[in-house]
Amino acid sequence: MIYLDYNATTPVAAEVLEVMLPFLRERYGNPSSSHMAGRQAHEAIETARGQVAKLIGASPDEIVFTSGGTEATNLALRGVVLAQPDRRHIVTSSFEHPATAETCLLLERQGLRVTRVPVGSDGRVRAEEVGRALGAEPALVTVMHANNEIGTLQPIAEISRLARKKGAVVHTDAAQTLGKIPLDVDTLGVDLLTIAGHKLYAPKGVGALYVRRSTALERVLAGAGHERGLRPGTENVAGIVALGKACEIAERDLISEQMRLRGLREHLLAKLRAAVDGLVLHGHPAERLPNTLFVSFPGVHGAQLLDAVPEIAASTGSACHSGSNAACASLLAIGVDPAQAVGPVRLSLGRDTTVQGVEQAAECLASAWKRIRACSEAIAKAQRG
Amino acid sequence: MIYLDYNATTPVAAEVLEVMLPFLRERYGNPSSSHMAGRQAHEAIETARGQVAKLIGASPDEIVFTSGGTEATNLALRGVVLAQPDRRHIVTSSFEHPATAETCLLLERQGLRVTRVPVGSDGRVRAEEVGRALGAEPALVTVMHANNEIGTLQPIAEISRLARKKGAVVHTDAAQTLGKIPLDVDTLGVDLLTIAGHKLYAPKGVGALYVRRSTALERVLAGAGHERGLRPGTENVAGIVALGKACEIAERDLISEQMRLRGLREHLLAKLRAAVDGLVLHGHPAERLPNTLFVSFPGVHGAQLLDAVPEIAASTGSACHSGSNAACASLLAIGVDPAQAVGPVRLSLGRDTTVQGVEQAAECLASAWKRIRACSEAIAKAQRG
Repeated sequence: MIYLDYNATTPVAAEVLEVMLPFLRERYGNPSSSHMAGRQAHEAIETARGQVAKLIGASPDEIVFTSGGTEATNLALRGVVLAQPDRRHIVTSSFEHPATAETCLLLERQGLRVTRVPVGSDGRVRAEEVGRALGAEPALVTVMHANNEIGTLQPIAEISRLARKKGAVVHTDAAQTLGKIPLDVDTLGVDLLTIAGHKLYAPKGVGALYVRRSTALERVLAGAGHERGLRPGTENVAGIVALGKACEIAERDLISEQMRLRGLREHLLAKLRAAVDGLVLHGHPAERLPNTLFVSFPGVHGAQLLDAVPEIAASTGSACHSGSNAACASLLAIGVDPAQAVGPVRLSLGRDTTVQGVEQAAECLASAWKRIRACSEAIAKAQRG
Repeated sequence: MIYLDYNATTPVAAEVLEVMLPFLRERYGNPSSSHMAGRQAHEAIETARGQVAKLIGASPDEIVFTSGGTEATNLALRGVVLAQPDRRHIVTSSFEHPATAETCLLLERQGLRVTRVPVGSDGRVRAEEVGRALGAEPALVTVMHANNEIGTLQPIAEISRLARKKGAVVHTDAAQTLGKIPLDVDTLGVDLLTIAGHKLYAPKGVGALYVRRSTALERVLAGAGHERGLRPGTENVAGIVALGKACEIAERDLISEQMRLRGLREHLLAKLRAAVDGLVLHGHPAERLPNTLFVSFPGVHGAQLLDAVPEIAASTGSACHSGSNAACASLLAIGVDPAQAVGPVRLSLGRDTTVQGVEQAAECLASAWKRIRACSEAIAKAQRG
């Protein structure tokens, strides 16, 4: 299998598994217990908190561990609204991940006003359009750091500058960017930032929310006072330790891995373009994740193409939506014709991707495309005749 | 170390770790992905769903996986209230776990009426008192299956019978009972039941909610449509697989382990009573978890006693509260004098507890108690003289 679906999920890094194993074996204490077993677990969580904070330029006390990106985003958006009940306006983009989009919808049903800023045909939100949408008293601006399907990077720093002038709290979902590109919460100017472990070579079931110290936030789930009262429930110790280590590794390898992946991505694109006449790359060619291509193969539906190459694991869009044959929401959002928008394939590269892998993938995809096209043309010809 | 804090958390069983490891290594697919890697993960989740369902006499489609017991309880209580907005009355007990107590408080702040039924001096809620508290149109009755500190079992089947006559949905938190005593959702007559993996030899960070097919429930967290739309967020595949296996093992060993632990618990109690004059066992002597003792050592504070025996890992109450020196809420709830209520020690036994272990523990605890008492008496005498 050639795995080109790293945006859906990543394997757990071997180094990460190694540090989490003791917490699945002998170090099983409850971090809230006062005895030695509990204190060991507690200290491990605090070490991880420091590792996560360091990767994003934050302080350890600004990290709240959660069960994943979706919970972190729920806490961010709903926590802000609960903490400042007088501000009733949210500004977001029209192509957010369901964690954000559905939470905005829920808040809208609760009476908040939600403005959804459209996205340019290059897959980028315009900061000035966000600026114009802010109105008098925005509670919150939430725009994802990189679109999970198209892979385009968003101008979060500019958006933050405009939003904070109006006193809005700024959130970004960095699930797809953390560990792929350098990321600093002060450079971005955000108050809240979503982290998902399983996009970063940590296991599924763990994530974190960065909460700037000055940000008023209320908890969303009720229970005991874990995570400074912001997130109840016994901590997923092994998962948290894993997320910490994954952040440490990401920091160590960030620049070299970013360059390597960008090179592989361009190589894959060049090979595909050479073999597939009329291949369309969606989204801005440069302002995108180093590992992601979102491409349409002319005349062939992405799902049909991927069915024909079971040795390649890739997707037609976000894993959250796969299985559904609907037109890709991200492409509709950037104004792509619906007839074209049913077709794209997302190829996302990662730590174990090799030159040989992308070359094989390009070859398999191109030859499957040619086969399917020839077959369709033959059928069309037969029907005409 | 002699670990006697299994109610705080359990180690991950070796057999459980073994089945989860492949999902932390080569089987890393996102269960929502359509390719082979995704389908493998999806199938593993469905197998686990069947294993969890089987242990409690439910159908697989009645199991919703969550990040743990606290999230499951939030989903249960708030999900019911969201689904039937016309019913505005909740009945609960006065000594619930914070996951339930704090969620009830939150709902009370949102305008619901919450009746907290007092607990008898034997640590048991009276079903007839719950019956009297129901009123005309109760939305929900939620009483924990066993108290996590005192260890007493609650008459859930009788409570359910009364509550369902009035059309209430019935929830119970079974975090402390699942795997320790036989448990069947139909015998209990509950509609919703909370499961916490890490009390059951699965890892921290995974749990489940049983949702009877006829129960109207709305999701609490917003996002993509995982878990039949009831719980968004990429599934904690390794954790879920672990929970499934832990349930399978619990079912296999249930009766023999229950008998073994009850024998060990009685042996520990006898040893302690023989060595500690005036030892008080809190809660009903028989209607209790097979593994739990909640005892006061006369004249000595539990925290002081446990500090003197660092080789024993036990607690002065729920791990959620340890570190605080406040009087034990459960004991205050059952009418124990506050002077006595600061003192108890919870000794909870589990799969790795041995006869030698409990004998050593009894000896250590008794001799520490004697030392501290002698010391206090000497100080008191010196002060008088």
